[in-house]
Amino acid sequence: MPDQGEQPASLSEATAWCGTEDNLDDPEEVRVVFSALDAFSQYSKVAHFNVTHLRRRSFYALPQAHWKMLAAPPFNFLETLDKTDDAIDSNAELARAIVAHGLRSFHHLAAVSPQGEPVIPLEWTGVAKHGDIDKARSTIRQFYRDWTAEGAVERDVCYAPIFKTLSEHRARIGEGRRPKVLVPGAGLGRLVFELCQKGYEAEGNEISYHQLLASSCILNECPVAGKYTIYPWIHTFSNHVTRANHLRSYKAPDIHPATTLANSTGVGSMSMCAADFLCLYADDEHREMYDAVASLFFLDTAPNLIRYLEVIYHCLRPGGVLVNVGPLLWHFENQAPGNHGHDDDGDGEHDYNNSSGIADPGSFELSNDEVMALLDKLGFKVEWTQTGMETSYIQDNESMLQTVYKAAAWVARKPE
Amino acid sequence: MPDQGEQPASLSEATAWCGTEDNLDDPEEVRVVFSALDAFSQYSKVAHFNVTHLRRRSFYALPQAHWKMLAAPPFNFLETLDKTDDAIDSNAELARAIVAHGLRSFHHLAAVSPQGEPVIPLEWTGVAKHGDIDKARSTIRQFYRDWTAEGAVERDVCYAPIFKTLSEHRARIGEGRRPKVLVPGAGLGRLVFELCQKGYEAEGNEISYHQLLASSCILNECPVAGKYTIYPWIHTFSNHVTRANHLRSYKAPDIHPATTLANSTGVGSMSMCAADFLCLYADDEHREMYDAVASLFFLDTAPNLIRYLEVIYHCLRPGGVLVNVGPLLWHFENQAPGNHGHDDDGDGEHDYNNSSGIADPGSFELSNDEVMALLDKLGFKVEWTQTGMETSYIQDNESMLQTVYKAAAWVARKPE
Repeated sequence: MPDQGEQPASLSEATAWCGTEDNLDDPEEVRVVFSALDAFSQYSKVAHFNVTHLRRRSFYALPQAHWKMLAAPPFNFLETLDKTDDAIDSNAELARAIVAHGLRSFHHLAAVSPQGEPVIPLEWTGVAKHGDIDKARSTIRQFYRDWTAEGAVERDVCYAPIFKTLSEHRARIGEGRRPKVLVPGAGLGRLVFELCQKGYEAEGNEISYHQLLASSCILNECPVAGKYTIYPWIHTFSNHVTRANHLRSYKAPDIHPATTLANSTGVGSMSMCAADFLCLYADDEHREMYDAVASLFFLDTAPNLIRYLEVIYHCLRPGGVLVNVGPLLWHFENQAPGNHGHDDDGDGEHDYNNSSGIADPGSFELSNDEVMALLDKLGFKVEWTQTGMETSYIQDNESMLQTVYKAAAWVARKPE
Repeated sequence: MPDQGEQPASLSEATAWCGTEDNLDDPEEVRVVFSALDAFSQYSKVAHFNVTHLRRRSFYALPQAHWKMLAAPPFNFLETLDKTDDAIDSNAELARAIVAHGLRSFHHLAAVSPQGEPVIPLEWTGVAKHGDIDKARSTIRQFYRDWTAEGAVERDVCYAPIFKTLSEHRARIGEGRRPKVLVPGAGLGRLVFELCQKGYEAEGNEISYHQLLASSCILNECPVAGKYTIYPWIHTFSNHVTRANHLRSYKAPDIHPATTLANSTGVGSMSMCAADFLCLYADDEHREMYDAVASLFFLDTAPNLIRYLEVIYHCLRPGGVLVNVGPLLWHFENQAPGNHGHDDDGDGEHDYNNSSGIADPGSFELSNDEVMALLDKLGFKVEWTQTGMETSYIQDNESMLQTVYKAAAWVARKPE
């Protein structure tokens, strides 16, 4: 993805992209890009339909005496729906910015509107499937976790053992070079950014274009902190203590990335690679390239954890560390990849013609003690481990439904 | 549902059923009964397929070196699958007991096997849809909450404010009569049973035949405590700290209901009504019939909470109390009933020809403060309220994923 050439030098240099342009001869990769772009462009329409239109219909289907009671104070239910529409519009500003940024980045694939703006070509308009649109919505919600001040509560718990481990490893390496850290499953890029700020050569890897487009938009193009106002809790009407909390908004991003880096000393570098982790990092070029791998809510995305850990082992320098934080919510549990499973969400995402990556057939799910045993089996030395680390993931703290992970955190070293 | 005539008198009298036989002229009601029975009879086959068969296929699809590593100690993954099969078989004993009990209860609708046993008629075999089978599985898991010793942790938190409120109300009524308590959404019947044991005239109401068949089996036919061994956590392989916990079993029921009642003094009575709450309790016959209504994880099953509360108000005596414990996980949020919504789970459950019950068109979802305002609007006097009551629902306490409700508990009185 080309830089836009309009950012402060510190950031546009830092956020070089890799991995995309090589692949864009592949028509399947082009389809994936436009499915993500189309999903963000449909966010507004789909959210208005599902969240407010269907509710208005259900509301007026009530007995008249009932809907009249609910339309009046103190309920003002129709006002709530109007405010929800406004909130969707506000979220949609971010969605549209992601689309516009993506189209500028992939301008060689885009069509051009009569006004000269890049637009999604007609052949790719409406191509997003249900699962894509769902991912666009969850990506918008994820800004709460990665790019709001309030989300720091969630980030800090998870980042702490990573920062501590890397800091110790840096001391061990000495001052000769900046440690190179790989963050697979980098999502919206906050951890990669923070590592860059702390002086590491941070490289993110991400397979989802929904996430890649969104992180690139914030890191490369967002002109100012607080540019967007997101409403992460509006998509469900369940478990709200008050309507005010349901409609609570948050400013994103909490910081302007480029300004923050410009004002920091001892900054490292950052880059983001759009690729299947297993495909990109298993080659000779990446052998013993990294001082550390930081896996955060990542390992359970593996259909085959042995391959994930083998590739991590392969690309770590001798003496390098894998630091992990996360639960074991095996993403492929009900949708084993390849010919041997079924694609439950119907988005066909893992059916693409890829013979060596995450889509390979075969999968299994381990318990936490078995994961620890596997690390040992594959040659890692487990140096520190903690279980029951309470952490949440895009959680409204006021909600009547709290989903809390008792995550595992551990450090495993590749022997010298 | 007729009594079996083989139970200790104290219980077979206590658990008179109502509401079913009236309706069984309705072919739709017969379909619902057999869909539930068929779902329990399919539990074993479907669970073996989804939980272990697909996993074996995914396992052998791995590279040979990988599956061989996992087949060996300390992983013994194939042994885990064998143990999981055994656990499914153990759960299936309970499922089969529920089917056998149901067929004996509805013997006039059942066919007869060559061995003279009641069986599901051929025309109803295989009629259970995906959603039915899912409910059979979740009903088996629900035995953990309602009928194991370990489930007391979940029950005690929720029952405490109910017992306290009813005890105070009994003192207020005086010794002249036993208070009549209605438990809508009675599920597997544990609360109804406990209220009976404490001397109340407890009446449960439940719309789901999955739950009705299961509670009747335990209350009316289970011969001894600990008859069944259930494995509630086997259906998912995610978020297990150890394999031992994944495969942990529990004895059910923790008590033999009839023996427990026989050994108790001052026992009340219990009954269970199979019906749509809105249809049954809104009539003149039920007007001002109950001293109290205890709603536990029930109010959020309402598409139209105004109707629920109006019916509760209608059937409470003047001065009677509604005591509530639960979150606001609005069950109809994404599947508004009637013509104005869509049936997301595809089981068509709420499409039946019913002009005055839960299937009526129209729905809405309130926040907790709005629910409190609605109580006031409808004439209740809210006397006590608590928010943020931490409670879980069929939760493996060792899991790396904890779902915790911050439930609302409150007491609302119908004025004298």
